[in-house]
This record gives sequence, C-alpha cells and structure tokens, in this order.
Amino acid sequence: MKKRQGMSEGFIDELHNVLGKSVVLSGADIDARYHHDLAGNPVPKPRAVVRPRTTEDVSVLLRLCHREGVPVTTQGGMTGLVRGALPNANEIVLSMERMNSVEEVDASAGVAIAQAGTPLQKLQGRVEQDGLMFPLDLGARGSCTIGGNISTNAGGNRVIRYGMTRDLILGLEVVTADGTVLKGLHKYIKNNTGIDLKQLFIGSEGILGVVTRAALRVFPAPAERQVALCALPSFGQVMALLKLARKSLGGDLTAFEVMWNAYYRQTVERVKGVVRPLPTHHPFYVLLEASGSDAERIRDGLEKMLETAMGDNLILDATLSTSNASVAAIWRIRDSSVELGRSFPFTARMGFDVSVAIDRMEEYADTLDARVKAIDPQAFTIVMGHVGDGNLHPSVYHEHTPDKHDEFEKLVYDLTGEFGGSISAEHGIGILRRPYLKMSRTEEEIETMRTLKRALDPKNILNPGRIFTV
Amino acid sequence: MKKRQGMSEGFIDELHNVLGKSVVLSGADIDARYHHDLAGNPVPKPRAVVRPRTTEDVSVLLRLCHREGVPVTTQGGMTGLVRGALPNANEIVLSMERMNSVEEVDASAGVAIAQAGTPLQKLQGRVEQDGLMFPLDLGARGSCTIGGNISTNAGGNRVIRYGMTRDLILGLEVVTADGTVLKGLHKYIKNNTGIDLKQLFIGSEGILGVVTRAALRVFPAPAERQVALCALPSFGQVMALLKLARKSLGGDLTAFEVMWNAYYRQTVERVKGVVRPLPTHHPFYVLLEASGSDAERIRDGLEKMLETAMGDNLILDATLSTSNASVAAIWRIRDSSVELGRSFPFTARMGFDVSVAIDRMEEYADTLDARVKAIDPQAFTIVMGHVGDGNLHPSVYHEHTPDKHDEFEKLVYDLTGEFGGSISAEHGIGILRRPYLKMSRTEEEIETMRTLKRALDPKNILNPGRIFTV
Repeated sequence: MKKRQGMSEGFIDELHNVLGKSVVLSGADIDARYHHDLAGNPVPKPRAVVRPRTTEDVSVLLRLCHREGVPVTTQGGMTGLVRGALPNANEIVLSMERMNSVEEVDASAGVAIAQAGTPLQKLQGRVEQDGLMFPLDLGARGSCTIGGNISTNAGGNRVIRYGMTRDLILGLEVVTADGTVLKGLHKYIKNNTGIDLKQLFIGSEGILGVVTRAALRVFPAPAERQVALCALPSFGQVMALLKLARKSLGGDLTAFEVMWNAYYRQTVERVKGVVRPLPTHHPFYVLLEASGSDAERIRDGLEKMLETAMGDNLILDATLSTSNASVAAIWRIRDSSVELGRSFPFTARMGFDVSVAIDRMEEYADTLDARVKAIDPQAFTIVMGHVGDGNLHPSVYHEHTPDKHDEFEKLVYDLTGEFGGSISAEHGIGILRRPYLKMSRTEEEIETMRTLKRALDPKNILNPGRIFTV
Repeated sequence: MKKRQGMSEGFIDELHNVLGKSVVLSGADIDARYHHDLAGNPVPKPRAVVRPRTTEDVSVLLRLCHREGVPVTTQGGMTGLVRGALPNANEIVLSMERMNSVEEVDASAGVAIAQAGTPLQKLQGRVEQDGLMFPLDLGARGSCTIGGNISTNAGGNRVIRYGMTRDLILGLEVVTADGTVLKGLHKYIKNNTGIDLKQLFIGSEGILGVVTRAALRVFPAPAERQVALCALPSFGQVMALLKLARKSLGGDLTAFEVMWNAYYRQTVERVKGVVRPLPTHHPFYVLLEASGSDAERIRDGLEKMLETAMGDNLILDATLSTSNASVAAIWRIRDSSVELGRSFPFTARMGFDVSVAIDRMEEYADTLDARVKAIDPQAFTIVMGHVGDGNLHPSVYHEHTPDKHDEFEKLVYDLTGEFGGSISAEHGIGILRRPYLKMSRTEEEIETMRTLKRALDPKNILNPGRIFTV
C-alpha cells in the first residue's frame, strides 16, 4: 500500500484522549507480537495498537479513522497463514484481545454468544460445562479467536458433519467502516427478513466490517467418540470407503481424513512421540471418526462398517481406538503436519490448501508430483487432506531458493486452475495469495467484490489490500 | 411504485428484435398467469413477458433494461406468499420457465447443476434416478422453482437435518442488474477465495441479481423413512422429547413438527381424506421423522427412542408408520393447513410464519390467542410449526373485515417483536410484509441493505420495492 496522507500529527493523541491511555498503545508500549509473523519475522511497527473493551470503543475508533482516512488492520489470534493480519506501513492495529468473554450459553435454544476476541478453545471449554459442543475445531484452537474464525470462515476437522464456520453462525454484531454498529445478534436458524447481512462479513477477511460479537450454534456434546485408522490399496477404495461410511454411519460420521503413503510413513518415522498403529507400506491411510450421544450405537455402527469394508476388500488393515488416549494418538498422526515439515533440515516446506473434485484427487496428486520433479528432481510432495470435504493439503519440499519458491507456487495454482479447483479451501487469500485469486474467481466476480468494498468502505480503511486492491 | 419515465415507445420492439418473437411476449400474447396471484386476483398487465432460453438472453435483457431504466420482476413458480413476484405497473416480467433443465448430476461429488426455472419436484425426481436426494422439500414442490427457492432461501420440512436452501448451495451463476454474468458455479464445499458473492443472492428476493443456474448439494437417498406421531401432555414434554430425539437419533432425525391440539383436532375432523391415528383430546401432537440409508438402524433407533419416551412419561400415546402409505397418511395431517383454512366458510384465515425461541413458544401461542380474543371474541388461533427449527406457523381465523385484518396483522408482528423473534422465518418480506421489516431488523441494518442495493443495482430495476424502497 502506498503511504496515506490522511493521518494528522495529532490523531494518535486524539485517540488517546477519546478512548483512554489503556486502550491506545503507541511507541515503546507496542509489543512485538502485534507486528511479527508466526515465524518471528518483523514488519514495520504500527502507529498505534488499539485494544477496545466494548463495541462502542470499536465504533468510536472506526468513526475517527473513517473521518481521517486512516487504515486499520484487525487482529485476532494471529494464526492466519496468508498474511492478512500483519499491519502494513502506517496502519493502526485494532486488537480484539480484550473482548474475550463468552456472554451467554443457552442450551435449550442451542446458542452461545461470544465476543469476537474469545479464543476458540475458551469457548469450547465454556460450552462443555453445560454439556454442549461448539463443533468448530482446528489445530490453532488455543490461540485463534472466534472473530478470526468468522472472518476467515474457518474449516477444520469436522466440516463433513457440521460445515464451515459460516454454517455455525446465527447472528453477528458488526461495526462497519464509518463506525455504524449493525446489531444483528439474531438467534434463529430461520430468519428470512431481507438481505442476510451477516453473510457478507463471514469469510471476507475483515475488509467489509469488524465483527464484535457472534451468536453461535452449539450442539449436545457427543458422549462417545471413536476413531478408526484404515489402510487401503488404492484411491478407488478410498472413495468406496467414503461412500460406505456415509451410508452406514449417516450423521454420526464426523471426520474422514486421508493420508497418502508418504505422509503417514514419514510422520510415524520422523516425528517424535507419534505412534505407528499400522505398517507403513500401504498406499493410503484413512482416519475415520464417528461420534454421537448414543455410545452403544456409535461403537456398533463403526464396528459393523469396518467388518463390511473388510468383507468387500476395501481395506487391508484397520485399528480401532479403544480409549480416549488412543483416539488422541491416532489424531496426532493427522495433526503433525507442521512437525513433519520441521523434521526435514535444509528443506523448505510449502503448504497448500486446495479444493479439487474427489474423483480427480489422485490424478491431481500424481500430476503435481510429476511436475514438481520435472522442475527439481530432488524435490518431492507429501499429500493429505479432508477428503470427505473435497479439500487437500499438498506440501512441496525442496531446497529453498526464491526462484524455485515462486515457480512451485505458480505450478500448484496453475494445476488447481486446470482442475477447476479452489486455490484456497480454508485459509483465505490475505496478501500472500492475492496474485492467484484470479485462478478461482472470474474478473467479473472480483470486480463485484470491489463494488461491495467501495460501497461499504468508501475510504478503504479496513484491512486495505487484503484479498484484492481497490 | 411511481411510474418510470425510462421506457421509450420502441423499447418492446427492440426487445422483440434482439431476443426474438418467441422470447418476448406482449399485448394479447400475455397469459393471465403472469399477472394473477394464487387466489386469482389480477394486477395490471405487464408491458412484456420475457422468457429467456439461456443465460445470455437474461444478460441481453438486463443490459437493455439497465440502459433504459426499465424495471423487471423475475418470476419462478409464482408460489410465493408475500407478493414478491407479481408485476408492479410498468414492469417487465422475466419468467424463468424455459430455463428448466437439470444439466448435470454428479454422484461422486454430490452435486447437481440445474437451471433456475427447474421445478423443485423435477429436480428431486431426476436425482432420485441416480439414487440421490435433494433434501429441500415443501408443499409447493410441484410448482415452485429452484431459482425461487434460492431467492427466498426456502425452508420446509427437513431444515432440522439439512438446513435451509442456503445450506444446499455450492455455487451460483447470476446475472446482475447491468447484464454482467457472474460465473460462480463452483462445486466445492470449501472455497475461501474472497467475498462469497453467492450469499448475497440467496434469500434477497431477486433485488440484487437474477439467478440463472445453481450447483446444489445432493445426498445419498435414504433407504428408509419412518414416521411416528406422538401425543403429549404439555409443551414442556414437547421440548424434552426434542432433546431426547436429538440425542438418540442424532443425524437420523429429519423432522420434528408440532401441532397444538386445535390444529390436529380440527384437521382430522374437518379435512376430507385425513386419517385419525390418535384420539383428539391430547394437548400436543408431534410428528417425528427418522430417515437414513441403514433401514435396520432407523427402525431400531426410532422404536428404542419411543420406548424411552414412554418410560419417561414424555408421551401419552404414539403410532409408528408401518408402510410408505402410513408415512404419507401421517404427513398428510401436517400438510393440510391450506385445506383446513378452506374448511371454515365465511371465516378469513391469516397465516403467519415466525421464529421464536423454543422455550417461549407456548407463552407466545397463549398470548397470541388471548390478544386475538380480546379484539374479537369470535376469532381464534390455530398453531403448528417446525418446532425443531424454532419456527411457528400460527393462523388467525376471523370474520373478515379490512380493519380487523390490519389489526390482527399488527398484533402478530408486534408480539413477535416483543418476543425478539423473526417476523418471517421462511416466506420472506416481498411487498406484503415490508411495513413490518423494522420489527426484525434495525434501521442501520435496513440502511446497509439499501447501500448494497444502490451499489449493485444503481438504477433500481430489479424487483424494485420488494423488501424495502430505496
């Protein structure tokens, strides 16, 4: 972003005066965490960090920034992967960290109301006290916030049963660019009263408004969770197993994760503390979870399904969790992708996040590997993903040079475009993937996004330059 | 709407020339169905009826209408209940009736692609041929179209399991007001690549764009469907039964419909051809459906749940469907609300569609009845609804006078506002409910809707005056 002219010298002083010293940090009071990425790389220090206590604080801040044309970047747990929340030069950081309360849990209505800065794990824990579950779950649960989950439409491990974050939102309170508060904390599943404004703010990475509170769907906590790890001879059998699992487990199927041989083998061999429940020579491994409130039904259903799968030669081998500890141990394999990446010294790992039609996933993975090797015979790919949702996370490992990095990135996004896939299933666009947005959206779609941005944020102050430039 | 200045004398001729005689009907060629409501009441004849064969036809039409500032009303199956699709004076009708093909059914991806004018029942039937189900279902299935379902975010009978129409949409092709085609027929569950534009067009009643094609989620067809009708002593037991059903049936619970005594009793006594599976003196009746692909599991689950409910004194009596015919016979009771309305001669029936918190539904219904009787001691209420989704359909029966009509309408919407409910759970706002939009949306929300309308349709040509005036 080019430097703005708007911010007058006294603007930070005005913020101090209006919002209070404890809300507005500047100069030496700004901690490094507000302007360093996950890897610890610094970006320029923001002019100020504003930490609102209330929705009214957010409204006051944005009204003033709108008046002056001062850009603002909103920060949640800073666990995003696309450089969406790191401040650009001259931006003010709006940190939601102090608005972190779960305000209400209503079991009979199936609703919880949380402030946007609430860490996901804190919300999960709070509703558990009432025998409930908020189904969204992802590796960053300890740090990521509800507001960040909403603005990125987070996916995670249970999408196959409960959908994306979007599907878990009943209502939102949002502050728009000029400080207007949209009080839309509706609690109803069914509410067809005009344009459903909340949808605009879910997944749009904070460029149209700042989410301050959310009414979220919560469900009865499952009494039982069982996990099976299966070994399969081919991707055709993986698809057949998915079909069988959907049929026989119905709504009790809560995860269907696939690991290509390289992922499983390398993880159990290289990552410390990971168990090896099955031998490492099989072509594919499926982690399959069933859960629900009727323990007997879950156990019987899963066992019966595995018997059928064995009988039909869909699976070569399988192991079933026998305790909470073994559930965790099996999930640990699937959740160790970051540790696996770090286990290869001198090698750069580039992680991707694409959606591809399931019946073309094998072809996609094979083509990717062949093209990667054509560029660099030493490079290799490791693939796994939420196959039940059509989502793959392929990684490319290579000796890092900036040229190669760009070449591999282009390769993956071009290939995804050729397959008619989505270049970002879960993680969003931010700044890092902006050059590739056009692989998944048409020019007319992007232009319509710009029209919306101009209408709702005419001075372009909210997370400017994220997703697209205006 | 005040009369537009825009339409030049030769405009209809230009449409004829550009789109062809068979696409553009005018004068005596315009059938009554394009300008009569469901009850057969006429509105002014439109200047022309345009029946596009392709998305390109829609684009050409809107480009020309945008140029001239000519308003257009889009028509699907004309089964809406809020006067959204009847033309206002001087509007051109855009009928989607010729774009009625199911273009693709992909079982492995779980996607069907249909043109917007496809009748719902036609789509249901087409995917059934491939062993699949499109879960949306409502009484108007034979006439209503996919495009109409999308633009009104239709609900219906299976929301408790599959969600609203919004939850079944993967991608949309949409033509915006100036004729731009947004090619967004994405097929992925997970696709976080910028603002999710399709959400804008779902449920916004055609004021932001014309949906031309949709990529829809389809599911394996359930092999088994079982229905129980239960009699209950109080609304407290109704809530307890819902909790039990959710817990023990999990994702197999596909409907939970509640009838207050008056609805059940009057329906089985007055509507011809309706059976009476249970006596008529119980306070509440619940229709509960379980379905899935594992027949044995569905039957066992439902029987076990009913035993528990009997043991816990939640239900006084129950009957279980023993055949497809008995499933249909029990559903027939629930689906006879229109026939019930017609069975009272000389009495006007006013149907409503509200969302209210489930633990306040009984109080809502009782208060409604008391207030209705305070206005007119001869008037009465009949209540039923999709209670599992928080949605009630109360009806007010009275000797019709225009004054009373307005008074009862105000009463229901005021009461819904007092209960913090939604004045339109499923049916939308259209023109009929426009005066009451402010009961469910704040001034700031409605003003933001206007901002979006102005940005995407600056000449206000798409369904003008529906939901709000600009």
